[in-house]
Amino acid sequence: MKKQVRFAVLGGGSWATALVKMLTKNLPKVTWYMRNSEAIEFIKTNKHNPNYLTSVEFRLSQLNLTDNIDVAVKAADVLIFAIPSAFLESELQKLSIPLKDKIIFSAIKGIVPESGKIVGEHFHDAYDIPLKNIGVITGPCHAEEVALDRLSYLTVASADKDKAKLVASKLGSESIKTKISDDIIGTEYAAMLKNIYALAAGIAHGLGYGDNFQSVLMSNAIREMKRYIKRVHKMKRNINNSAYLGDLLVTGYSTFSRNRMFGNMIGKGYTVKSAMMEMNMVAEGYYATKSAYEQKNSFKNKVRTPIIDTVYRILYQNESARKNFKALADRMD
Amino acid sequence: MKKQVRFAVLGGGSWATALVKMLTKNLPKVTWYMRNSEAIEFIKTNKHNPNYLTSVEFRLSQLNLTDNIDVAVKAADVLIFAIPSAFLESELQKLSIPLKDKIIFSAIKGIVPESGKIVGEHFHDAYDIPLKNIGVITGPCHAEEVALDRLSYLTVASADKDKAKLVASKLGSESIKTKISDDIIGTEYAAMLKNIYALAAGIAHGLGYGDNFQSVLMSNAIREMKRYIKRVHKMKRNINNSAYLGDLLVTGYSTFSRNRMFGNMIGKGYTVKSAMMEMNMVAEGYYATKSAYEQKNSFKNKVRTPIIDTVYRILYQNESARKNFKALADRMD
Repeated sequence: MKKQVRFAVLGGGSWATALVKMLTKNLPKVTWYMRNSEAIEFIKTNKHNPNYLTSVEFRLSQLNLTDNIDVAVKAADVLIFAIPSAFLESELQKLSIPLKDKIIFSAIKGIVPESGKIVGEHFHDAYDIPLKNIGVITGPCHAEEVALDRLSYLTVASADKDKAKLVASKLGSESIKTKISDDIIGTEYAAMLKNIYALAAGIAHGLGYGDNFQSVLMSNAIREMKRYIKRVHKMKRNINNSAYLGDLLVTGYSTFSRNRMFGNMIGKGYTVKSAMMEMNMVAEGYYATKSAYEQKNSFKNKVRTPIIDTVYRILYQNESARKNFKALADRMD
Repeated sequence: MKKQVRFAVLGGGSWATALVKMLTKNLPKVTWYMRNSEAIEFIKTNKHNPNYLTSVEFRLSQLNLTDNIDVAVKAADVLIFAIPSAFLESELQKLSIPLKDKIIFSAIKGIVPESGKIVGEHFHDAYDIPLKNIGVITGPCHAEEVALDRLSYLTVASADKDKAKLVASKLGSESIKTKISDDIIGTEYAAMLKNIYALAAGIAHGLGYGDNFQSVLMSNAIREMKRYIKRVHKMKRNINNSAYLGDLLVTGYSTFSRNRMFGNMIGKGYTVKSAMMEMNMVAEGYYATKSAYEQKNSFKNKVRTPIIDTVYRILYQNESARKNFKALADRMD
């Protein structure tokens, strides 16, 4: 099987571009789907993505570019999805062929708004993909640093160890170290929850809290994440591994994170609506907050999540950021 | 006892100044020792420290300023030491009265070079202070943010809970939240070890590693710290609490940290000697590295500390930073 496995990356953003770059180091050919056909034409002429990681130059002979999702799915055995979660379902609706024999890896860090589920669960429930054919590729990893060949670490998780190993072997290189994990649910929840905590860090910054508070917030966030994930899927995991704590830190401390930027505007007094308009996009953490909050209320055993609760009240119940962070500060230690 | 307890802060730097500020919010009078008599005269005229946290204005009626350490020790029941560890012993040598009936809290984050011990152990061994009279005040806390009244969290640790509570009650305020702990050894080791990890973060930055690597380094550092402290003093502790993880993060992510700056110069190719000369001071992490490395070699059960080992080889065995960080990167996950 190993020899003939064909890979496709679906998505045209920075993370998709970084993934294609990684794969082309190890594979003679990579299928790359993006809906933007102008970008495809641009790449065919200029050898780089016009909008993201423009410094990354591709060998055209290695790329099978297409704006037809059916073509991409047909051409590959392993599909790596790197489409923002808000657009995933509308892209999948374009499909006229079944997905169910494919191996699906998600490099999407968020919640599918239509189902309120993490991506792996969504594929499993809505597209009948067996769990053994589902995987997750997770950070800590800024795509921009992959472009610069700065040493980065990826965790590749799947219930089927061999599939995790296969995908890890095609992503790894001198500048990408990979680790495999069988905690497919925990790593994906971590990647989703960390966006809420990055959003919280942004709100705190916007309100004028400083570095001391930020470090206490992150210290409380990792403990909250541990409690939350334990309720979703109890197994032995070290929450301080890179896939959990590392991913939280790279996002929570990044001033480029969209979640942090969004939070910062909320902290500075923008309404949710005006912050969204100003950014001309929706931060993943916005959906994640609602989903995580609603989901935890369905847990059989209650879980204490003061940070998620606080962000939820601010984003969805129109409550004062200042007042709620003052109360949150009293609940942290 | 509570009513008459008298406090003294020993030290003239930014952290000492911040501690005096905290105490004067709760106490009518605070004794403040510093060796620099010109600074004392300046404060008496201008109401603020000439060199550190210059925006903090004191009420002179609340300060009992002295450049005579005997006078300070006589005037107080609780002595809070905030003298850089490299100068602690030479200051203590000036004493002509015994310390042994005093309650000693250390706000020093480092190793006493003369004994190679953390400060609490040093006071216990060299000055016969019973452990029940020793405590630690630890971050995560930049003094600069205390000056700005930005919300900060302190952990006050002592084997004697009542003493920890007493000191916490005198430091706490609207902008300083305090937590008490009985892990006097673990919190002090954490405060010491984090300087080594901040130094490592600086070296990595100097070598050109990016944010992805930094987050993986911190994720590995907290696991290494947990293993190390467990060997020194085994007890139930959550390493992700603010006193451990929070303290690591506030230092490891601070671009103002002297340890990080020192490491950065080493990463950029300065020799240890020239980096020290350039900075005109010695970073705490420099001593901490030697002490932590030598101490771990005396542990009955071996402990895996790739980060400490790496920094040790670079600082003390004149080995290549680039080569050793490449090897370290392979050992991290």
